[in-house]
Amino acid sequence: MRKTKLSLLDQIDNPLDLKKLKPAQLPQLCDELRAFLVETVSQHGGHFGASLGTVELTAALHYVMNTPYDQLVWDVGHQAYGHKILTGRRDFFSSNRKYKGISGFPRRSESEYDAFGTGHSSTSISAALGMAIAAKHRGEHDKQHIAVIGDGAMTAGMAFEALNHAGATDTNLIVILNDNCMSIDQNVGALKEYLTHLALSKTYNSLRKNVGKTIHKLPLVGERSKELLHRTKSGIKSMFSEHANFFEALNLRYFGPVDGHDVLNLAETLRDMRNIPGPKLLHVVTTKGKGYAPAEQEKTLWHFPGLFDKVTGKIHKATNDTPQAPKYQDVFGHSIIELAERNDKIVGITPAMLSGSSLKFMMEKMPKRTFDVGICEQHAVTLAAGLATQGMTAFCNIYSSFMQRGYDQLVHDVVLQQLPVIFCLDRGGLVGEDGATHHGIYDIAYSRCLPGLVISSPMNESELRNLMYTAQLPGLEQPFMIRYPRGQGVMPNWKTPFEKIKVGTGRQIREGRDIAILSFGHPGNFALEACSELEEEGLSAALFDMRFVKPIDEKLLHYVFENYQHIITVEDGCVIGGLGSAVLEFMAAKQYHAHVRILGVPDRIVEHGKVNELHRECGFDKIGIITAAKEMLQDLVLTQKLVKHESL
Amino acid sequence: MRKTKLSLLDQIDNPLDLKKLKPAQLPQLCDELRAFLVETVSQHGGHFGASLGTVELTAALHYVMNTPYDQLVWDVGHQAYGHKILTGRRDFFSSNRKYKGISGFPRRSESEYDAFGTGHSSTSISAALGMAIAAKHRGEHDKQHIAVIGDGAMTAGMAFEALNHAGATDTNLIVILNDNCMSIDQNVGALKEYLTHLALSKTYNSLRKNVGKTIHKLPLVGERSKELLHRTKSGIKSMFSEHANFFEALNLRYFGPVDGHDVLNLAETLRDMRNIPGPKLLHVVTTKGKGYAPAEQEKTLWHFPGLFDKVTGKIHKATNDTPQAPKYQDVFGHSIIELAERNDKIVGITPAMLSGSSLKFMMEKMPKRTFDVGICEQHAVTLAAGLATQGMTAFCNIYSSFMQRGYDQLVHDVVLQQLPVIFCLDRGGLVGEDGATHHGIYDIAYSRCLPGLVISSPMNESELRNLMYTAQLPGLEQPFMIRYPRGQGVMPNWKTPFEKIKVGTGRQIREGRDIAILSFGHPGNFALEACSELEEEGLSAALFDMRFVKPIDEKLLHYVFENYQHIITVEDGCVIGGLGSAVLEFMAAKQYHAHVRILGVPDRIVEHGKVNELHRECGFDKIGIITAAKEMLQDLVLTQKLVKHESL
Repeated sequence: MRKTKLSLLDQIDNPLDLKKLKPAQLPQLCDELRAFLVETVSQHGGHFGASLGTVELTAALHYVMNTPYDQLVWDVGHQAYGHKILTGRRDFFSSNRKYKGISGFPRRSESEYDAFGTGHSSTSISAALGMAIAAKHRGEHDKQHIAVIGDGAMTAGMAFEALNHAGATDTNLIVILNDNCMSIDQNVGALKEYLTHLALSKTYNSLRKNVGKTIHKLPLVGERSKELLHRTKSGIKSMFSEHANFFEALNLRYFGPVDGHDVLNLAETLRDMRNIPGPKLLHVVTTKGKGYAPAEQEKTLWHFPGLFDKVTGKIHKATNDTPQAPKYQDVFGHSIIELAERNDKIVGITPAMLSGSSLKFMMEKMPKRTFDVGICEQHAVTLAAGLATQGMTAFCNIYSSFMQRGYDQLVHDVVLQQLPVIFCLDRGGLVGEDGATHHGIYDIAYSRCLPGLVISSPMNESELRNLMYTAQLPGLEQPFMIRYPRGQGVMPNWKTPFEKIKVGTGRQIREGRDIAILSFGHPGNFALEACSELEEEGLSAALFDMRFVKPIDEKLLHYVFENYQHIITVEDGCVIGGLGSAVLEFMAAKQYHAHVRILGVPDRIVEHGKVNELHRECGFDKIGIITAAKEMLQDLVLTQKLVKHESL
Repeated sequence: MRKTKLSLLDQIDNPLDLKKLKPAQLPQLCDELRAFLVETVSQHGGHFGASLGTVELTAALHYVMNTPYDQLVWDVGHQAYGHKILTGRRDFFSSNRKYKGISGFPRRSESEYDAFGTGHSSTSISAALGMAIAAKHRGEHDKQHIAVIGDGAMTAGMAFEALNHAGATDTNLIVILNDNCMSIDQNVGALKEYLTHLALSKTYNSLRKNVGKTIHKLPLVGERSKELLHRTKSGIKSMFSEHANFFEALNLRYFGPVDGHDVLNLAETLRDMRNIPGPKLLHVVTTKGKGYAPAEQEKTLWHFPGLFDKVTGKIHKATNDTPQAPKYQDVFGHSIIELAERNDKIVGITPAMLSGSSLKFMMEKMPKRTFDVGICEQHAVTLAAGLATQGMTAFCNIYSSFMQRGYDQLVHDVVLQQLPVIFCLDRGGLVGEDGATHHGIYDIAYSRCLPGLVISSPMNESELRNLMYTAQLPGLEQPFMIRYPRGQGVMPNWKTPFEKIKVGTGRQIREGRDIAILSFGHPGNFALEACSELEEEGLSAALFDMRFVKPIDEKLLHYVFENYQHIITVEDGCVIGGLGSAVLEFMAAKQYHAHVRILGVPDRIVEHGKVNELHRECGFDKIGIITAAKEMLQDLVLTQKLVKHESL
């Protein structure tokens, strides 16, 4: 139950209610919305800093714009909690990111106010431009299309592509650049420096409060607006900033920078911008974590803090005296330093996931050999390829689902040139609460079709270390992918000595008589548990950790098909095109005939929830494997029951 | 045999020879190089206009830079013919793009002067930056890294990502913007307008000849260069152009624009730029097709003209009185207009392949409903998704291998939202002379793992029309992919009435007793021919045109597995993860046991050659299918032989 009474927010079930407020009430509403966010996220978790930073912008947008007729697209969506709360989801916002609850990102299926589903960054301008072109086609000349995009997301090439197109149109597109100098970590790159320069320029302080008023005084409404704007164009521009030419070079009218926490000025500015035709950009300066002191100070930590005490700002840690297994990402983060200390050709690359990948440890220790390139997966991959041509060993760490954005570069720049780049695909498999957009479940399928690419996955921390070690050894002249999941491994004492693994070899984990289970990566642990329980029920299952789906261990597979009639494959990836398909392709090529059952993520969209809830739902956790094995061994199961029955 | 004697060019076997020339001889060398290009391409075919436009730049680069120690990356590579000729490939340049001949694009395996393999656009800055970072790491402070990138390629987001990173480094990177206002078609977008504005600005005409000299006079060499540059920086900048802020906003020093056909000035400018530390950009204005009048006039036609008479400029057309089957792309290009005339929700989108996709016909007839978004596959896909949210029916036409660059957008923006975008994937399958970078062979595998995506391929022109018709009918609320190959179909009378196809249904093309052949798309025609020849040898093969790999026709597959023990699948795509795998997955799920053989592109890199040569090499043309069938039916073949023998 919520303790705080929020006299304004509690009245707002949708933006129509919001519009009933007087302008003077908006600051109080923003305070209440902020208080609500702090209370809810502190108790139920979720993304935090981004939405605190957009409280005023959210209120101003729904106050001024005619949503949902006007189309509002939140880039990424981390910052859209306030939007969700103001658009009818206040009372069940506590279900945010929970199994069967509302999504942590905008979802079209969830609300008509969510104009476009997001999760990955930098899609908003393209989507909003598509909507704006559709409106033009239908003659809806009053309709507005707003993309709210962060300065971090603006570094992705996709955003630039959309600006380049938008600037050549005369659509009703408003790009709101939410400039807080942050991705999840500090934003990077030349554009960020440029924006900071803009925001700190002399004109800024004198103009930030007056932008709305300035526009307001110009006679821009109605039929003659275009002509008038054309006439006064340069005048307006130079009034706003003399350095605004990056966006103006792309033919977008640039307004700002304005203070993103002055809700009244924001509302006034937005109201005026409605009346200015054509594509335009409003540069809004915000503070990530605004209004909650700890979050303002440590922005990366408070991007996604977990549960916390809202009064003290103390983040709750799991208190457990037994040694915990580390996160796979940390094993990567520490192991790459160990390897880099021995091998001076190693560099680390991340596209804006310095913390998330734990490459931050290397950045601290070896800043010259660590590269955060911004939200630029395409560039990250080809940069690594360029490094590889010079004999460098680049560990390019990319979340599995974000690797989709570097796919052509993987194919074209790395695989077709057989350059020995090492890809560490973090968040491979179902990721849990982030949901469908972030599940890294297509990577095995989209990679397995590429020639000469080694595709591996460790069953535990030690294996991850050994795969990393193996990949960077001299002499292996081909690209090497190591895929591991979000979350913890299984080895509290994870820091095992490095050992070379022979590429393309699996290993037998457990002997067994009745059925063979072939696993790829971490789910081998579920299979191991399943084998034990099956044993108790008198069913003897062998377990093979394949380690590589490419090259696949043919010797191992010959052994399996020669000795087993029942085979289960288990992977934390889509059942189409993955390990299971590889095994079937082998079986067909070698003309074996066995009963093969493929366990993994089914061919439908899997939503969010805890990882174990989703494993359960998809049927490849321990219980799923046991169930599948029993179904396949039905005859045996019946026999066992008879035996048991007789022995009673 | 070459007729023309080229007194300078004939002496140049590598850039060391080039460096022996006096500056005053460079113009003549350029004339000879141009004459050689005209002669060779007119007789042997290949890309034409782009390399004519870079003759002087190529000569100047190799004259001044210390290649191959200095790393020279040609973006896309269409413009690198001159580079190949000057770097030891003159005497076998006539094998360009031919089977087992040299590649039409730079290839690392072909020459040490080809620093990075290209083919797809906009990769050069990332690759060169990777190399430059490696040089820094190794203390090679004199080493230069040059990316030559066109204004068309500069519109792709990937190039922007690389610039954004480069501007935050202090690497020896020289980006040469080869500005000819063209992609294959006219370049588009806001940046293009901006560059044109730069090139036409007042300062341009007075400065274009003097850029080299101006830099030359500045004391920038040696230890103090950084400091001096800093001091004189704004002075230099403003001298070059007052509008150069787009690149300077990204912290790249901007030089130019300079005349790209003044080889002496180019050489001088490049020599001076070597001495300026840090990332920088030289804006070079060139004319595509320079020096060959017909190519200068009709730039798109002469991008890739085919064989021609070098004197008259007349392009040779195949003279054949028998009616020819059209290209698939033209069937698309004309059919979309027919559909759009009936359905006003239809729009057409292409990322810079207006001519190549034949969407140019729609652009001519319905310019407001046709969008060329530049080399921006990412944006193209999400733009289509945005349009679809508003009830528009976007036909998004992208070459199969370029779709790799829009993969995340396909997954994240289209599939996860189940938006009814229609993707027409042209150049699906082996494309022939363009080679490995352009083969569209991974699309079936990378798409088939995505839930709710319809994946279809027509066996002929009529089927293409019917699939397009079906996809745009109201009520089909899911994404729909139609994949077809480069080149001609099989129906001279292709303009058949539109007929609806039931999604997920195949069709039996031919009855047969001994073996079932399942084909996807155009290779069904090879299979049909194979069936006839097998028949003559007494082997009876049934043929099923699957039409859809997703959803796959389970009823048809049940029939096949119930009636045949020998099954061949045929597809113009990689054998991993495609139709064959789909059939195996069905077989495993339904517990059938048959002997299945998968024909398609094997799991290795397939180079260039004529399409039929490559089909042959990969073993899925008529002969390959016959061979596979006979191998599978060996027992029957022996029996047949006995029967024949006895009946003699």
